Amino acid sequence: MPSAILAEVRRSGHLESRHAGSLVVCDDQGKLVFSLGDADCATFPRSAIKALQALPLVASGAADRWALTPRELALACASHTGTPIHTETAASMLAKAGRDPACLECGIHWPSSTTAARALAATGHAPSALHNNCSGKHAGFICTAMAGGCDPAGYIQPDHPTMRDVVASVAAATGARLDADNRGIDGCSIPTFVTPLRAMATGFARFGAGVGLPEGFAQAAARLRAAVAAHPDMVAGKGRFDTEVMVTLGHAAFVKGGAEGVLAGAMPTLGLGFALKVDDGAARAADACAAWLLARFLGEHAVLSKWANQQLRNWNGIDVGTISAVAA
Amino acid sequence: MPSAILAEVRRSGHLESRHAGSLVVCDDQGKLVFSLGDADCATFPRSAIKALQALPLVASGAADRWALTPRELALACASHTGTPIHTETAASMLAKAGRDPACLECGIHWPSSTTAARALAATGHAPSALHNNCSGKHAGFICTAMAGGCDPAGYIQPDHPTMRDVVASVAAATGARLDADNRGIDGCSIPTFVTPLRAMATGFARFGAGVGLPEGFAQAAARLRAAVAAHPDMVAGKGRFDTEVMVTLGHAAFVKGGAEGVLAGAMPTLGLGFALKVDDGAARAADACAAWLLARFLGEHAVLSKWANQQLRNWNGIDVGTISAVAA
Repeated sequence: MPSAILAEVRRSGHLESRHAGSLVVCDDQGKLVFSLGDADCATFPRSAIKALQALPLVASGAADRWALTPRELALACASHTGTPIHTETAASMLAKAGRDPACLECGIHWPSSTTAARALAATGHAPSALHNNCSGKHAGFICTAMAGGCDPAGYIQPDHPTMRDVVASVAAATGARLDADNRGIDGCSIPTFVTPLRAMATGFARFGAGVGLPEGFAQAAARLRAAVAAHPDMVAGKGRFDTEVMVTLGHAAFVKGGAEGVLAGAMPTLGLGFALKVDDGAARAADACAAWLLARFLGEHAVLSKWANQQLRNWNGIDVGTISAVAA
Repeated sequence: MPSAILAEVRRSGHLESRHAGSLVVCDDQGKLVFSLGDADCATFPRSAIKALQALPLVASGAADRWALTPRELALACASHTGTPIHTETAASMLAKAGRDPACLECGIHWPSSTTAARALAATGHAPSALHNNCSGKHAGFICTAMAGGCDPAGYIQPDHPTMRDVVASVAAATGARLDADNRGIDGCSIPTFVTPLRAMATGFARFGAGVGLPEGFAQAAARLRAAVAAHPDMVAGKGRFDTEVMVTLGHAAFVKGGAEGVLAGAMPTLGLGFALKVDDGAARAADACAAWLLARFLGEHAVLSKWANQQLRNWNGIDVGTISAVAA
């Protein structure tokens, strides 16, 4: 099936740009409840499935072994903006497991928060791996390895015992085949696998409802969901879609964006999961479409209207157009 | 006609994202020489036509009146990255016309060069309107107004005499109808008009060849082209597509990108102009497609191959994929 137009950019009312893509909503049995575009679309989930990748951290007992706090568990599911609260929390996770940032293998980049990047630049310091948006996830991997008595070195490789557990957990939650044939390398260097949107949506329906998951994972999922709902600022950052939506909707929605226009999540009160891919990789369209979807299934909220119909203002603050979910 | 796929993103060989759009190549008579996608596509040209908007600066005599240098004329055609050489040049243009940055009406943003933004942050200073990527164009408008004995205040408004001249020049060069019905407000607050790609391409064929333009504009176009060819670093900045291509190809190609995936230019030695629009607004796809086009018409160059087939490296420097023009 072809993609559908998910979002449009209008300038003074005239169509300027448009974003095609696909969206699916599934229950925990994998039954398709709703779709736009190609219901059989498959793509790299990138960071959208970080919460599923964090399941072994809790299920293995590592989170208890190192007494990780809800704030730290939320950061393990995060693509954070590199502000001090994020970097300090990642450093704390590593310290609890007896390690330091030198063992992070995610690479280094400047904070994605421009405010945080400028503040760091003003200190004259360079960024570290703690500022990488994935540092919480990686700290979680290292905590898992250390609790299992495993040397974390090389944990980003597909054949490292910790990464094998992570991939097996995602495969178990989603039912997807994840092997060398459909494997790529993510921005933070861990494996990522071409995965059907239906499998992602099913995995998040299970994650949200706590059913259909392997032994121990239901409780782990509930604990991660609670951690994220309590600390949505840790999962992304100020002004970001994931954070703003979860601040408002609390336990009713779990949402997580990934690179290249992927966004997935759960609507636990309905027993549903969803996943969407914007063909061109634009986050602005993923956010708009996800906001529309959440409003359709969970009811209208001001924060969802704001993201489903984003006002565009120019450098003088003049209202010049909109980015809107097409179905909105 | 539907759009065509112009560029694809692949991760470890697997298709991850794709960009649709349209491309046209025209001669100075408006004859269509080549196209991909919808040859009748019309969109806001945004910054892609800054060189056409700069024609009155030279044709009116303002450039001579204020003794603007080739470097300053190149900046009048620029979407620059806000480095000191850019901001100092914009300030110099204003000073020559007896004005200062307070009369810039483009709005303020941090330098688009992250290096420049961090360097500015490290000084503890905030950005000014000089850092706006359009400050050279706006300084040119102010120079034009002042040379004509016109108060520049309000020059961003459609009914200001200077802006009327700018819009009339673009209409004359492109043959497009530019009026209130198809008008929007650009990022820097000046009017922008929905324009057929064919009209943009025709305008740039005329700009490049110096034919088909109103009295005085052929010489103005030649002077702007020479200025840009001599100072391609002023038109964008280090590492940017427009600058890298023009550093390599010199007088053989004029290229200028705009917001929302528009890119236009001239191949003067062939008497041709071109314009393209990526439907979703992605610059990465516009750059790849334009590089492919230039190689097809002007012959292969290493810099064009690099941009038509961009390597994607992650934060550890690992080769994780490609962004490629589909026709490449």
